[in-house]
Amino acid sequence: MSSELMSPGLIENATLNPVQMDLDDPLAPMRQKFDLPEGLIYLNGNSLGPLPRSTRQRMQRVVEQEWGQGLIRSWNSADWISMPQRIGGLIAPLIGAQAEEVIVADSTSVNLFKLIHAALKLNPGRNKIVTELGNFPTDLYVLQGIARDIGIELCAVERDQLVEALDSNTALLVLTQVHYKSGEMFDLDEMTRHAHEVGAIILWDLSHSTGAVPVDLNRARADLAVGCGYKYLNGGPGAPSFLYVAQRHQADFEQPLTGWFGHAQPFAMSDEFLPAEGITRALCGTAPVLGCAALEEGVQLALEADMQRVREKSVALCELFISLVDQSLSEFDFQIATPREASLRGSQVSLRHEQAYPIMQALIAAGVVGDFRAPDILRFGFAPLYIRFVDVERAVEKLTCVMVDEHWREARFQIRTKVT
Amino acid sequence: MSSELMSPGLIENATLNPVQMDLDDPLAPMRQKFDLPEGLIYLNGNSLGPLPRSTRQRMQRVVEQEWGQGLIRSWNSADWISMPQRIGGLIAPLIGAQAEEVIVADSTSVNLFKLIHAALKLNPGRNKIVTELGNFPTDLYVLQGIARDIGIELCAVERDQLVEALDSNTALLVLTQVHYKSGEMFDLDEMTRHAHEVGAIILWDLSHSTGAVPVDLNRARADLAVGCGYKYLNGGPGAPSFLYVAQRHQADFEQPLTGWFGHAQPFAMSDEFLPAEGITRALCGTAPVLGCAALEEGVQLALEADMQRVREKSVALCELFISLVDQSLSEFDFQIATPREASLRGSQVSLRHEQAYPIMQALIAAGVVGDFRAPDILRFGFAPLYIRFVDVERAVEKLTCVMVDEHWREARFQIRTKVT
Repeated sequence: MSSELMSPGLIENATLNPVQMDLDDPLAPMRQKFDLPEGLIYLNGNSLGPLPRSTRQRMQRVVEQEWGQGLIRSWNSADWISMPQRIGGLIAPLIGAQAEEVIVADSTSVNLFKLIHAALKLNPGRNKIVTELGNFPTDLYVLQGIARDIGIELCAVERDQLVEALDSNTALLVLTQVHYKSGEMFDLDEMTRHAHEVGAIILWDLSHSTGAVPVDLNRARADLAVGCGYKYLNGGPGAPSFLYVAQRHQADFEQPLTGWFGHAQPFAMSDEFLPAEGITRALCGTAPVLGCAALEEGVQLALEADMQRVREKSVALCELFISLVDQSLSEFDFQIATPREASLRGSQVSLRHEQAYPIMQALIAAGVVGDFRAPDILRFGFAPLYIRFVDVERAVEKLTCVMVDEHWREARFQIRTKVT
Repeated sequence: MSSELMSPGLIENATLNPVQMDLDDPLAPMRQKFDLPEGLIYLNGNSLGPLPRSTRQRMQRVVEQEWGQGLIRSWNSADWISMPQRIGGLIAPLIGAQAEEVIVADSTSVNLFKLIHAALKLNPGRNKIVTELGNFPTDLYVLQGIARDIGIELCAVERDQLVEALDSNTALLVLTQVHYKSGEMFDLDEMTRHAHEVGAIILWDLSHSTGAVPVDLNRARADLAVGCGYKYLNGGPGAPSFLYVAQRHQADFEQPLTGWFGHAQPFAMSDEFLPAEGITRALCGTAPVLGCAALEEGVQLALEADMQRVREKSVALCELFISLVDQSLSEFDFQIATPREASLRGSQVSLRHEQAYPIMQALIAAGVVGDFRAPDILRFGFAPLYIRFVDVERAVEKLTCVMVDEHWREARFQIRTKVT
């Protein structure tokens, strides 16, 4: 276990009085910085984070002033040109990296593609990539496309067989730190060490952890990482992604998408590709300025909160939820699909129920937004920057109401009617 | 020559009275739909198009209502999920394609990468790609990266040697329809025919033509194409790009970036990649919603104008500029670097001058924004939706003033001072 282990849960010492817990919460004022719909309990920030209030003004400025008035000149005057490096540098402390190890570009899927190819070049002569069965779909799909195209062996195994699957032929281990469905969290230090023990490179997908869970890539000596801008970083729908390349790999880092923004001198417009120094060579095409602007606001907001406090609150929110589910829903055949031990969990709790889909529909109709993941998972994300303890209590009350009144049977009926 | 040849230029029949030309211009009302800075003459829409007025409201809606209030539900309720296909379908008539042949995704560079790889699979057993020396840099860079990684021969030759370079070993010809620097335009039908004569696939980069020049990919039986969203489509800085795959190639179309948005059922979240039917398999990661929204507004505006009228005005604007340069600037050692024959030209005119850089700086300071391309090109884009004939006249007057008063010598001095 890493040093990330939490102090004995806040919950155990508390009276389970959510109102008091909110009063005692040092992060409580952060909620005012988000534009949350009245009356909605939004437990889906692990899928799409909400709108920071400052983003409204920022988007108006980038659209009306920088684009509308500044036009092409804003590449320099509004410093659009350095957005990928600048926002990457802002994200760096959230993931335990140096500023020059992180850059913002493209989508998570495209960045996975770049880094997987780069890893194979950094670790030549090996012919196998290991990953987890049930990893986030796009991670598996990108890996499968690469395996198809270059004939490398892709070994996807259950979580408890990962270490065993690593061998001297393994070039790369690709893992998602927090599982999108179960919320289970890998020990980043430990799995990095296992990969390094066999001489493999590790590529971490931090999509479901960055901004909600402390991450320390440098301490772990992690090699490569990607992450998502639109979940706990609150960067807006389809926000650009970020990627990390450890300093020690940057000189030999070579990725296949050699577009002009990765050139040493893009505006020299020479005929020959010459990769930029450092992390900039991970760029490909023109930076998506509007998406970058929204992401920068979200990241700046995340930086306002101390990450250890964020983690403590996250653990407390999840533990409150689990306690209340245990208390109130014991008769309704829910199973907690997420580890009960905080150190093994990200910032979400998933429940398993055979009627998960109609139950979630009914719950959403009742004003509590979580989401459903096939075949039987109800997923609840607890983003500490804007979720209150009273929201957790209210969510469980609403879920109890849905179950007691059997509202979900109507929901199922409505859905069936709609489909047929 | 294709049927795209223009009627004898409007200029020849005109009195060179720009005020009257604006009064007679059926596209003149379109200018009101853009938010252009007061007093600025913006001849750089071939690099970054200006802000459509409707985009301001659209961006406010997508940020504050769809993201802020709708949150995750907007993937369905605001139909974010079908933006790539929907906006692709809107672009299709601008490039002579069917709606289901075009999709919006990623950057132009990333889309070039996808299509080059796909082309090599569509045309197996051949080992050579032909392109033009001096093609847009990112096209060359992406090609060079692919050549480096898979060992295919990249043959980049001067424009007049392209046809000769095509042979029975050529898998693919990659051309940019309108040259970014010179403004020279290929005959799309003719070059497509040359590629097909040797059994090669053609990939057109339409970045500097779409929205300003009529393009008919289907008539030419072109195979593949990409294009830029932020130039004549006015989609905003770093807007998503579009790509085209001819219907007849779609069943065998396979691209390397196999992310979840290209899956047949992305939200089934299965472990196995199964490509979507049709053009959707060209997608990779999550759609950049904010960028897509801005692009959709720009595309809808472009669709309001008849493309033949756009072309006629484009030709007339360019001819007026060339005439006035000939009249006013003959003593100042400018050369017209763009073909004087309208059918060989896109919607821009480039001038060559050994002091191009300081001259352009002085001209921008005087309120006329064109751009400089190394080593000696002053580039002027004439976007027919918002440029007036009086703007052309005024631009040449300002340029003449810069030359007569030798303002550019000060500009050069200022720049040197700044650098040192």
